[in-house]
Amino acid sequence: MKVLVVGGDGFCGWPTALHLSNLGHDVLIVDNLSRRKIDVELEVSSLTPIRPISERLAAWKEVTGKTIGFENVDVAQEYDHLLAILRSFEPDTIIHFAEQRAAPYSMKSPRHKRYTVDNNLNATNNILVAMVEAGLRSSCHLVHLGTMGVYGYGTAGMKIPEGYLTVHLKTDAGDEVQKEILYPVNPGSVYHMTKTQDQLMFAYYNKNDGLKITDLHQGIVWGTQTEETRMDERLINRFDYDGDYGTVLNRFLMQAAVDYPLTVHGTGGQTRAFIHIQDTVRCIQLAVEQPPQSGERVRILNQMTETHRVRELADLIAKIADAKIEYVNNPRKEDAENDLHVDNSQFLAMGLSPITLEEGLLEEVTNIARKYADNCDKTKIPCVSYWTPEQQQA
Amino acid sequence: MKVLVVGGDGFCGWPTALHLSNLGHDVLIVDNLSRRKIDVELEVSSLTPIRPISERLAAWKEVTGKTIGFENVDVAQEYDHLLAILRSFEPDTIIHFAEQRAAPYSMKSPRHKRYTVDNNLNATNNILVAMVEAGLRSSCHLVHLGTMGVYGYGTAGMKIPEGYLTVHLKTDAGDEVQKEILYPVNPGSVYHMTKTQDQLMFAYYNKNDGLKITDLHQGIVWGTQTEETRMDERLINRFDYDGDYGTVLNRFLMQAAVDYPLTVHGTGGQTRAFIHIQDTVRCIQLAVEQPPQSGERVRILNQMTETHRVRELADLIAKIADAKIEYVNNPRKEDAENDLHVDNSQFLAMGLSPITLEEGLLEEVTNIARKYADNCDKTKIPCVSYWTPEQQQA
Repeated sequence: MKVLVVGGDGFCGWPTALHLSNLGHDVLIVDNLSRRKIDVELEVSSLTPIRPISERLAAWKEVTGKTIGFENVDVAQEYDHLLAILRSFEPDTIIHFAEQRAAPYSMKSPRHKRYTVDNNLNATNNILVAMVEAGLRSSCHLVHLGTMGVYGYGTAGMKIPEGYLTVHLKTDAGDEVQKEILYPVNPGSVYHMTKTQDQLMFAYYNKNDGLKITDLHQGIVWGTQTEETRMDERLINRFDYDGDYGTVLNRFLMQAAVDYPLTVHGTGGQTRAFIHIQDTVRCIQLAVEQPPQSGERVRILNQMTETHRVRELADLIAKIADAKIEYVNNPRKEDAENDLHVDNSQFLAMGLSPITLEEGLLEEVTNIARKYADNCDKTKIPCVSYWTPEQQQA
Repeated sequence: MKVLVVGGDGFCGWPTALHLSNLGHDVLIVDNLSRRKIDVELEVSSLTPIRPISERLAAWKEVTGKTIGFENVDVAQEYDHLLAILRSFEPDTIIHFAEQRAAPYSMKSPRHKRYTVDNNLNATNNILVAMVEAGLRSSCHLVHLGTMGVYGYGTAGMKIPEGYLTVHLKTDAGDEVQKEILYPVNPGSVYHMTKTQDQLMFAYYNKNDGLKITDLHQGIVWGTQTEETRMDERLINRFDYDGDYGTVLNRFLMQAAVDYPLTVHGTGGQTRAFIHIQDTVRCIQLAVEQPPQSGERVRILNQMTETHRVRELADLIAKIADAKIEYVNNPRKEDAENDLHVDNSQFLAMGLSPITLEEGLLEEVTNIARKYADNCDKTKIPCVSYWTPEQQQA
């Protein structure tokens, strides 16, 4: 299968590209290296020593004999280049990771809000428009990395279904009708908002142009390595620990490794959904290999394996790694406490066998966080992006 | 009250600016003249002889003694300029018309789809971000021109409520809970899709930043003149009759005036919501003068006064003006027939007294369409924008 991985140099994109290449698919990465450039802007770098993309790809060829192509394109800005690639490569699948993906970064300043909206929405729309213009309407399947955050947090005692919700309505004549609607959204940041807007584009181009689309509503990814990124240190995946890009669990793991207190935002009562990076690449493989039928509505899958309350995670890691916990003001605007129940039966039925948190945590602390602890710049750990001016002042 | 009218040179924006100025408000127009530039691109012009913006404003000053300011700014692109205006003018109200508003134009080609998404979403986001950055969170009210088209057409026997829908859900424990959600969207073009995406931005910035926002879900506007645009011919409003920008009723009126058959798309079984341009400016006045409270959710008002089936409208105008009807292939992808019942009780309660179609139609045919018939380029009447390649080929 020919697979175009847009955003294939990032934290999820890179291990996905390797995994699909290793399975024998013909993989082409399109990326503008924006994630590395944001590191430059924020004056941070991955805890793990990631190599330049050309060196990564040369190492992959050396280790496995397999070739992954690369094109440096900004798909939000360089439509003609994107279109030319679709016409020449004729992908069977496009995997779309090409969005700014950090909630705190999207709230950092007016400029960052505007960049996130402009980049994410134009990237998604350009890919959809180009699929139609390149004549790939029936042949190509788009797989998009979305987020559990589109649902908002808090489920009022209901399990969150996979994308669609059945509602019962009364007509003016008093009859009951049943309708299936996109699950009502409640995004918690400008970043999450763009993903709720993406959903409306997918629904529209699916309806008007018959595009085959799978939207993966992913939980918070933890872990670093996959089978493929472990093959050679030059293939290592990035590990973000800074206040903007470090997701909660990886941040805790690194804090434990460098004797920094685990910083819990607010009460830590937020319940979040999680998935290991190895399961991410497996889920994407399953989604790629089992595309929707022509004429099928957008397929939405909840890509997560377990939920945890943030303070309980902190307790767990504090115990494993003998670390301290510090409660700090929450820079986000959100409920202090929430429950979260999520349906992920589709991926389980498709063949996913999840890695549990207990299995992987200790290995991650030892083999990644402790091993590369010297690369840590502790001044970059606190989150300095605030949701409102009032929170910044506090 | 200081009112910033963004997009104040367009079909709805111009008469709104005059109406609010006439009522004594301090009005500043921001516009990049994009609507006039699209006329150049499409090689069409308004049936009515609209004057350049500076001449319009000079005439307004001459006739009424009132001054309306003007700044040529592209709010989707020139954020810093927009921000500077918000800081110096300190508007109490911003009215946001600055979006590409024709469904056929948004479907014309890949470039037009991309322009509509890029322009509309960045314009809306920039205005919201600038309101926060300029410190107008609690003082300023944003009024946005949305569309009935966000609901999609077809209501399954239910009256379309004003923006929000109450749904009844069952928890996992079997309890019933009631939730109020944004009415599920079903846009019929890329243009309509951008308005559904706008809604998600309004909900988010209202939640996170407490912005006061009114979103007007407007029906198809018909008519040309308002009390103010009639005061002097140099103030006349634009009248679009071309296949892209000519809305159905105005197109029929003009076709009748130039002895061109009324072109009905498909069976003409589409039911649409309508409002006269005079009622548009009255509704906006009502919305401006009765802003939501601080802390109130986004106020959504259905800005329409009656619904009609397209073929019945054609019959009515054919009878009034002794015209022929021609059924042509529908360039849109939509249901051939639909019902539409709309709740507009909020505007009626706020004081709107609607102009009915019967009152205004004959005057419109005589005073506008017949009077300026010589300006008509009949080759521009057919819609040549198609929703899919298959429709183009047919």
